[in-house]
Amino acid sequence: MSTTLKFTVLLLALGFCQGLQHNYDNYIEEEEGVEPVSQASKYGSLWPLPQKVQTSEVSLKLSGFSFKIVDAKGSSAGPSCSLLQNAYRRYYEYVFGGAKKQKPSKTWRTGPSELTELQVWITSPDSECDGFPSVTSDESYELSVKQPVAVLKAPKVWGALHGLETFSQLVYEDEYGAKSINSTAIIDFPRFAHRGILLDTSRHFLPIKVILANLETMAMNKFNVFHWHIVDDPSFPYLSRTFPQLSQQGSYHPYTHVYTPADVKMVIEFARLRGIRVIPEFDTPGHTQSWGKGQPDLLTPCYSGAEPSGSFGPVNPILNTTYEFMEQFFKEVSSVFPDAYVHLGGDEVDFNCWKSNPDIKKFMDQQGFGQDYSKLESFYIQKLLDIVTTTKKGYMIWQEVFDNGVKLKPDTVVHVWIGGGSNEEMGKVTAAGYTTILSAPWYLDYISYGQDWQRYYKVEPLNFNGTEAQKKLVIGGEACLWGEYVDGTNLTPRLWPRASAVAERLWSAKEVTDINDAFNRLSVHRCRMVERGIPAEPLFSSYCPREYKGV
Amino acid sequence: MSTTLKFTVLLLALGFCQGLQHNYDNYIEEEEGVEPVSQASKYGSLWPLPQKVQTSEVSLKLSGFSFKIVDAKGSSAGPSCSLLQNAYRRYYEYVFGGAKKQKPSKTWRTGPSELTELQVWITSPDSECDGFPSVTSDESYELSVKQPVAVLKAPKVWGALHGLETFSQLVYEDEYGAKSINSTAIIDFPRFAHRGILLDTSRHFLPIKVILANLETMAMNKFNVFHWHIVDDPSFPYLSRTFPQLSQQGSYHPYTHVYTPADVKMVIEFARLRGIRVIPEFDTPGHTQSWGKGQPDLLTPCYSGAEPSGSFGPVNPILNTTYEFMEQFFKEVSSVFPDAYVHLGGDEVDFNCWKSNPDIKKFMDQQGFGQDYSKLESFYIQKLLDIVTTTKKGYMIWQEVFDNGVKLKPDTVVHVWIGGGSNEEMGKVTAAGYTTILSAPWYLDYISYGQDWQRYYKVEPLNFNGTEAQKKLVIGGEACLWGEYVDGTNLTPRLWPRASAVAERLWSAKEVTDINDAFNRLSVHRCRMVERGIPAEPLFSSYCPREYKGV
Repeated sequence: MSTTLKFTVLLLALGFCQGLQHNYDNYIEEEEGVEPVSQASKYGSLWPLPQKVQTSEVSLKLSGFSFKIVDAKGSSAGPSCSLLQNAYRRYYEYVFGGAKKQKPSKTWRTGPSELTELQVWITSPDSECDGFPSVTSDESYELSVKQPVAVLKAPKVWGALHGLETFSQLVYEDEYGAKSINSTAIIDFPRFAHRGILLDTSRHFLPIKVILANLETMAMNKFNVFHWHIVDDPSFPYLSRTFPQLSQQGSYHPYTHVYTPADVKMVIEFARLRGIRVIPEFDTPGHTQSWGKGQPDLLTPCYSGAEPSGSFGPVNPILNTTYEFMEQFFKEVSSVFPDAYVHLGGDEVDFNCWKSNPDIKKFMDQQGFGQDYSKLESFYIQKLLDIVTTTKKGYMIWQEVFDNGVKLKPDTVVHVWIGGGSNEEMGKVTAAGYTTILSAPWYLDYISYGQDWQRYYKVEPLNFNGTEAQKKLVIGGEACLWGEYVDGTNLTPRLWPRASAVAERLWSAKEVTDINDAFNRLSVHRCRMVERGIPAEPLFSSYCPREYKGV
Repeated sequence: MSTTLKFTVLLLALGFCQGLQHNYDNYIEEEEGVEPVSQASKYGSLWPLPQKVQTSEVSLKLSGFSFKIVDAKGSSAGPSCSLLQNAYRRYYEYVFGGAKKQKPSKTWRTGPSELTELQVWITSPDSECDGFPSVTSDESYELSVKQPVAVLKAPKVWGALHGLETFSQLVYEDEYGAKSINSTAIIDFPRFAHRGILLDTSRHFLPIKVILANLETMAMNKFNVFHWHIVDDPSFPYLSRTFPQLSQQGSYHPYTHVYTPADVKMVIEFARLRGIRVIPEFDTPGHTQSWGKGQPDLLTPCYSGAEPSGSFGPVNPILNTTYEFMEQFFKEVSSVFPDAYVHLGGDEVDFNCWKSNPDIKKFMDQQGFGQDYSKLESFYIQKLLDIVTTTKKGYMIWQEVFDNGVKLKPDTVVHVWIGGGSNEEMGKVTAAGYTTILSAPWYLDYISYGQDWQRYYKVEPLNFNGTEAQKKLVIGGEACLWGEYVDGTNLTPRLWPRASAVAERLWSAKEVTDINDAFNRLSVHRCRMVERGIPAEPLFSSYCPREYKGV
């Protein structure tokens, strides 16, 4: 009766490999000819895999009573850098479980093979401690663990944050439960600069608590962009100071299902402290049903024959009031969200309503657009882009805007999402000289039975025909979890560890493709997320030494 | 970029329908030609739908300060029936949110349209308060709500439990937040006697907390059988008093990943208090890899050529020691689990190992089985059934045991699970005179994108060729959530509300098939589960007035 009719039981007695690995058995299924073999990876539980790792079998102990994470003497970030101080506390708690450590009764002395300190050394004169991460941020770091101190060197705080996560992933418990770490040297930097997760707070409202938990988990996976698809057709939870009616009328509930300015600020700061950019998306002219409730005349009235039908289509592109609204609205957005980019959407515009409307038809004639409504769409988008440009923001747009030939600023990021032909699209976009990010193979809202993380893992973003210069224009990708079927009840386990596969693809070297090794590391990484309180779902039959404590 | 390219926005202003319904909008997608229309059901949020419901628009208020659930005067179950007392508290808390109610400052008086009491009246001389539910338990009840008191009549406590759940589902909040209920008359009983959920605690260990939360949710959906697939190949978490080595060696961890006798007792009592039977499954002779670790010589040694390969196959059917072990083991099982039935498995026996073993070959020759290893399988099962029969238990078995022509007791329940041909199988099993339950269309571990609950809902268990007498042998069905891909992190949202679709199919009248009405009731029912602390996942874009508070 079990679902796995052909069930290959691989019970390997696992050797204790380099001390970096929890020890347990996994049952692996055959899938697509892949048979991951369950054993300890020589890279322990590191995820995503750093660019260069040198490990040794020299094991050092860490005492929760005395171990310190400190600013190195020459560091440009001192005790006043609360971003780092905050991170030290966070990683101390992850490593030592946050338990209060009793002072030993005898005078405490450093043992012969003990690691007493991690020194964090920001090497560049400007640590960027109080700044925001950006697409050009230096995220590199070097980590040297050897007795008696470990040193984490990074030009900027962003690299230091990643290095702290890596350090915490190196710590393991020996057979007596003592915290240990092996002498290790790591040089690390991301392969791609833009490594994002899209969450959709319109189809279902996500409580702030859920968003923060996922930002925390993103940091564990070295993601650095939270693409906040904040509004869409179903609801408008963004509380705008300039246009409060938008959420007052357009949210599921104007008090319990909105993000207040304070909420948004908290999300942005929580993300910044973890090296994560927050890029909001305000998608127009389609996907705007919820906007129309609080902003009369913003949407196009659809007609049934000669009469308005009572329903509405995309944003009305022929009224001056539309652009006046957009100008004020995006002025607010540009000041609320500090990131240099805003995502303007521009996808899936349905022309039927525009076609039904006599005023639109007249306008099309006046402009000489004929029957080509994509010209009208481009007309709108062009004006919107000009408005946003005056706010000094760069913009990201979904691929249709590029496909329709809209004139884009050179620093525009084109977001490729349409499955089937995404390689060709990447070729076209980069041939035209635009930077691009890939999401088409990483729509994590699509679920299926089995280990689909392997499919995400096997994607190679540069696998398209193009010159070296074109490949350089691919700045990364995003895993998208659209909200039709997820809310606070199931989002987190559905996202993790499936998104972790995307994380490694975007961070690690191109050559890191061993699916067996990935399975072994990811299995332990998922248990680490569970131990840190994140309900990351299992890869396959297995167990975690400390199972999830929630329900 | 959203995944729903053709997105039909149905924003219906919902009328307040009979006061039974929370008020909210839902976005419905087109699927398989079905377009559920979002509006209030005339049956409010009742789930599963009772057999007969008469509602009125007369609304009565309930005061958390004074409302009482009491034993009716003539009831055969008094204050000493802790099952009912426990249920009164549970449902009081569900209805009134468990908040402490302040005594009104003025002398409190009953208002003109108030419901002050629910009287629970067990009408049969034996209430079965201290007994266990069984397949023949009377689960019927009648509920009459009218001013000033509601009366819940049931022959046995089992019906009363269902009636209390129904009562709690009738209570709603009016626009001022006041608890209200409409005058209603309900006559209710289940269509099928066996309505089960299978959980698998071998592929992943499920903490007791997770099991209890799901028993609680089963009660909210009127499920009455917890099929506990407690052990299997990957691990043996059942701590046997007679053979403690089984879990000592065969569990993922002998302390943190086992069910102690006290745990099992707690699960059984928690279930009993909710009218739920606990049927354990100890599946043999296949699916027993984990048994072999703590019980030497139980499994068949596989051979590679002339030498044992070191791996093991199914239970060894040719040794007397095997049957001596089974006798002792099932004697223990029969005393630990009070239910009249035990599930003996018997599925998916792989013959390769038996074929490789020279002793087995010799035995086959001696018995005259030729090359037909299913005869050997039947030989084993026959002996096992005889052993279990001496423990005075009935048994359930997976369909292969029937298919292989094993001689079964007349009261055997044959469990149909193989997809494709399950209708034919139901026909065959019932034609042979055996009772049967259906699981084939309800393997909830198989996931897919979209509203798959509709597929489960549309199943008609009696949709096979057979006489009326045959149809009567179908005693129910089970939704199965095999454990390869679920553990405590994701089990609950993956199970609910998808299993709720099965619950209604097995409880409500055959004619209850309106998918729109089901969508509307189930949407509210799912929010009720969320409000009760269960992370039941959403059906589609929507919101709950009170979203899930966990992460």
